[in-house]
Amino acid sequence: MRILITGAAGMVGRKLTERLARDRVLAGKPVLALDLHDIVPPEAPEMPNVAVTAHTGDLAAPGAAAALVASRPDVVFHLAGVVSGEAEANFDLGYRVNLDGTRALFDALREAGHAPRVVFTSSIAVFGAPFPDVIPDEFHPTPLTSYGTQKLIGEALLADYTRRGFFDGVGIRLPTICVRPGKPNKAASGFFSGIIREPLNGLPAVLPVPRSVVHTHASPRSAVNFLIHAAEIDGDRIGPRRNLTMPGVGVSVGEQIEALHRIAGDAVAGLIREEPDPTIWAIVQNWPTRFAANRARELGFVAETSFDEIVRAHIDDELGGKVG
Amino acid sequence: MRILITGAAGMVGRKLTERLARDRVLAGKPVLALDLHDIVPPEAPEMPNVAVTAHTGDLAAPGAAAALVASRPDVVFHLAGVVSGEAEANFDLGYRVNLDGTRALFDALREAGHAPRVVFTSSIAVFGAPFPDVIPDEFHPTPLTSYGTQKLIGEALLADYTRRGFFDGVGIRLPTICVRPGKPNKAASGFFSGIIREPLNGLPAVLPVPRSVVHTHASPRSAVNFLIHAAEIDGDRIGPRRNLTMPGVGVSVGEQIEALHRIAGDAVAGLIREEPDPTIWAIVQNWPTRFAANRARELGFVAETSFDEIVRAHIDDELGGKVG
Repeated sequence: MRILITGAAGMVGRKLTERLARDRVLAGKPVLALDLHDIVPPEAPEMPNVAVTAHTGDLAAPGAAAALVASRPDVVFHLAGVVSGEAEANFDLGYRVNLDGTRALFDALREAGHAPRVVFTSSIAVFGAPFPDVIPDEFHPTPLTSYGTQKLIGEALLADYTRRGFFDGVGIRLPTICVRPGKPNKAASGFFSGIIREPLNGLPAVLPVPRSVVHTHASPRSAVNFLIHAAEIDGDRIGPRRNLTMPGVGVSVGEQIEALHRIAGDAVAGLIREEPDPTIWAIVQNWPTRFAANRARELGFVAETSFDEIVRAHIDDELGGKVG
Repeated sequence: MRILITGAAGMVGRKLTERLARDRVLAGKPVLALDLHDIVPPEAPEMPNVAVTAHTGDLAAPGAAAALVASRPDVVFHLAGVVSGEAEANFDLGYRVNLDGTRALFDALREAGHAPRVVFTSSIAVFGAPFPDVIPDEFHPTPLTSYGTQKLIGEALLADYTRRGFFDGVGIRLPTICVRPGKPNKAASGFFSGIIREPLNGLPAVLPVPRSVVHTHASPRSAVNFLIHAAEIDGDRIGPRRNLTMPGVGVSVGEQIEALHRIAGDAVAGLIREEPDPTIWAIVQNWPTRFAANRARELGFVAETSFDEIVRAHIDDELGGKVG
């Protein structure tokens, strides 16, 4: 089993790499080679008897994708991409990386001709307001960002290249990943993680939106589980609709805070300061709230079932199981 | 008012050109220039005091789109495209013309910077089976052809480029155009027009599917009306969801034949011979049947309301108003 991960230096890419380094097996087969690619050098784990190679470069550059897939990987995790805020700020960069890079990779795989499994991380950003209360699997994608547009185009290419038999693709639309480890960032969605992560580290956190805001979350651990399951699932079970909205926990911010309260107590939850930010609220009001995700659940994709579980996953995976 | 039409040599392009040559006005403004583009030489109508120019070339070739929009057209009708069967038979050609050509045009308009109205002909081929009985406006596009995929990508780009303010786009998903004038062709959908057109010309026609097959049609005249309305409509009324499923007449093949019977009599309708073709039926079974098209109707797009009207439109527009 040869595996290629693009975007391997990103948060999800690093966690997927760690998981594969630990499991050393995918779809019941031993991992023999792991190729890690990113625009910045990805960290290559120590894996005895496994050929781990770090590649650095621009996937959209001529020949880059062909060189990368020359080893004929059996499974390709295509996670690479410019994030939402950057794709919005820099139109050309977003289209170059998220559209041209994806197409270059898909075309290189078509040329390689060995029809591997391709797991593509799409996003709930393919959806745009207004929304029904619960977004069904058959709801139309009408993105309101360039990032969402580029992900939607990636999904369309993935489905067509799969239908053509060039590869066997599975697109997974990730909900917001929470609790995101690391430092606070400037993303409009940053507070969803910040209000949990910072207090658990004994630090104050700002809540810029009303507690009534509802959003859907899955832990980084679930995101990796989705990727692994998408690599292992029988493609015939999926049928021609290759892009799946992943399950998650749809909760209000108030319910997020209640979960933190239950798990970490008054003092920790008390570190959250409400400081309304009309700009952030205006952005967040256009975001989807809840998803049915019935197809993904029926196909065996599993997420947390409560926000308490998401908080505990963060404490287990990032804080050594300890609160405070 | 300067107008550019790509795909001007196609059936809809020719009819749109004829209409503009007759009206000499669009959105209340006199037509001063008409640029006609296609991969084969489009026919330029005589229009006194109007600069009519025929352009021939490949829109995806470097610099071609920029040269074409250098005149800064106020309205661009982007009809150019490789048709469904050809895009399926020739993967590279389809993506080059339908995706790269469209993107080249959109990028050239972005560079030109004058933000014109862009009317893009998409297709109900963006949808893929299985379908509900009536396809709502919010139904997800999951194309089952490369053509449908390319149209979907064009729609996504159109919406994003519009949102960015690069131009003011309106995408219209055309139903099957019926009655298509001209010779019978090899398209799987050809019989929908053939069973009306050939008998009205005193010629036999083959019906390869059961009479129970339901499909949605609009006349060539309605297709041109859609294009004109899409050019004239206030963009603010449309909002961010720029791609609209056009209305049409959803009827069974049996109802099509009954309409022909009512209008042209026994002898004409008797020229249809039922000759089941399992290959064609298998293709047609994956096609959408009926559409709600509520948004388009509310926005003032008008189609025929019965198949009788569609037959009469053909008799008026192609047969000088005479049957037999």
